Amino acid sequence: MSLLVTGSIGIDTVDVPSGSAADVLGGSCVYFSQAASCFSPVRLVGVVGDDCPPDFLKPLHDNSQIDMAGLEVRQGSKTFRWHGKYHENLNQRDTIAVQLNVLIEKGHQKPSQFRDSQYVFLANNPPALQADLLDQVNSAKVVVADNMNLYIENDREALLALLPRIDGLVLNDSEAQQLTSQSNLVKAGLEIAQMVKSFVVIKKGEHGCVLFADENICVLPAYPALSVKDPTGAGDCFAGGMMGFLASANAVDFSSLRKSLGYATIVASFAIEDFSLDRLKQISLDDINDRLDKFRAMSRF
Amino acid sequence: MSLLVTGSIGIDTVDVPSGSAADVLGGSCVYFSQAASCFSPVRLVGVVGDDCPPDFLKPLHDNSQIDMAGLEVRQGSKTFRWHGKYHENLNQRDTIAVQLNVLIEKGHQKPSQFRDSQYVFLANNPPALQADLLDQVNSAKVVVADNMNLYIENDREALLALLPRIDGLVLNDSEAQQLTSQSNLVKAGLEIAQMVKSFVVIKKGEHGCVLFADENICVLPAYPALSVKDPTGAGDCFAGGMMGFLASANAVDFSSLRKSLGYATIVASFAIEDFSLDRLKQISLDDINDRLDKFRAMSRF
Repeated sequence: MSLLVTGSIGIDTVDVPSGSAADVLGGSCVYFSQAASCFSPVRLVGVVGDDCPPDFLKPLHDNSQIDMAGLEVRQGSKTFRWHGKYHENLNQRDTIAVQLNVLIEKGHQKPSQFRDSQYVFLANNPPALQADLLDQVNSAKVVVADNMNLYIENDREALLALLPRIDGLVLNDSEAQQLTSQSNLVKAGLEIAQMVKSFVVIKKGEHGCVLFADENICVLPAYPALSVKDPTGAGDCFAGGMMGFLASANAVDFSSLRKSLGYATIVASFAIEDFSLDRLKQISLDDINDRLDKFRAMSRF
Repeated sequence: MSLLVTGSIGIDTVDVPSGSAADVLGGSCVYFSQAASCFSPVRLVGVVGDDCPPDFLKPLHDNSQIDMAGLEVRQGSKTFRWHGKYHENLNQRDTIAVQLNVLIEKGHQKPSQFRDSQYVFLANNPPALQADLLDQVNSAKVVVADNMNLYIENDREALLALLPRIDGLVLNDSEAQQLTSQSNLVKAGLEIAQMVKSFVVIKKGEHGCVLFADENICVLPAYPALSVKDPTGAGDCFAGGMMGFLASANAVDFSSLRKSLGYATIVASFAIEDFSLDRLKQISLDDINDRLDKFRAMSRF
């Protein structure tokens, strides 16, 4: 089924203990699209400024599974930029610099031919903007949003208004605790599952994820990754793998949801092996299935 | 098969956000024994001072699966005492007071009838003392030790000398990183697996555990616990469930090891539901198997 994603496109600079990558392709809908494209065609909606180098988005344009009709190059605006530096253990990072630029200008319209999208993922954005985007895809069958601590703290009312309108929410553990004021993650997850239409996935980074849908719970460890170079975008790739699989299966029952988490985990485990999309653009569905088989074998007890 | 454990017996005071428990039964070999006794008879070796109240160890004496012949009540000595206070999220705690007392006096001998023990667990102790205890059980088939950051930092040489003599090591994630200077936990685990005869289990608390044996890896999430009152002793109960199952199965092949981790996880999930042994002493093997079935269903993907 048609899968649409809206989110950021960024020019990233990343410092990790083993090296640095300057001015590389990043942003939530970039990572999401590349990950989801392993499973399903993707419609990307995003905006860059006219400072974006001509070949910068080549990996996306080269990917026949990604429909770039929703890309806007806005004249007179500047592309979103982020510079992050990871700590020795790669689990923590500091933002060295961030320039939201075009991201905080007016929203952009989806191309009219995208309005029939059945699966929609609203990557990190202010909740009011997410709601606005949601208004443009009225026929969507499954809408899932990502969120971040910033909006839980500064824009709680708009977020609480958005939640009953979406099928699923993906957020990380500290955000779930912040949203509910529950320190117990299981209680937090069950509580958030009541706020949305259907389900919530709590991402715990290197510790895996937990899915809550009504009273049902599914819990997965992360793939035991030997090779971790740059964790940037891992959460977006996770969401991309999840939504890509759900769209390809055209199902969001509990069994499909937990299957999607296995794929999400594996796609994210590839993404962190190199900077930007460098590893992700090399892999095939066969590579994903091979690693998923290994992961399943490792998780039996 | 016969399972022997040596470790601490303590008088604990525990402050958690929901309340406090003063002067309750604790200590590594207490939690271990109660947990292991769900699967197998246990031989406890530990020492208290003459200040230990007469009925204090009643739950252990009342447990027909626990052989208390190895308990020494040392005249003129004082029992180990620990006072801890947990933070709001129950994942961190501060030690308010600790009195090692009898634990740092001379070691104690195992009763001669315990020397034929086939499965041996050396709970937290200085590595030299663990080695001394090991000398007393020469016919043991499987010896597993626990360790803590204190000895990795202050007694590294004795620890490194002990490792090649034991079959398995159980330690937590920060200890594994400290022992190997590897921030990647998978690399750390594979490295430690080469230091011992057979396997290492890295405990990650609420995030589950990872088993490394040669090149094999098994990774489990923790049981999604809704009810967490007091995490004290969870790691010892985990080890007790693991060793109790292995001793009852009389097997330490990879398949048995990972099965033991499922049981270990479940026993620990009961232990944290109340103070001291309060919850653990109520449960049966049926309760454990019921929850294990639920856990298996939750972990499928």
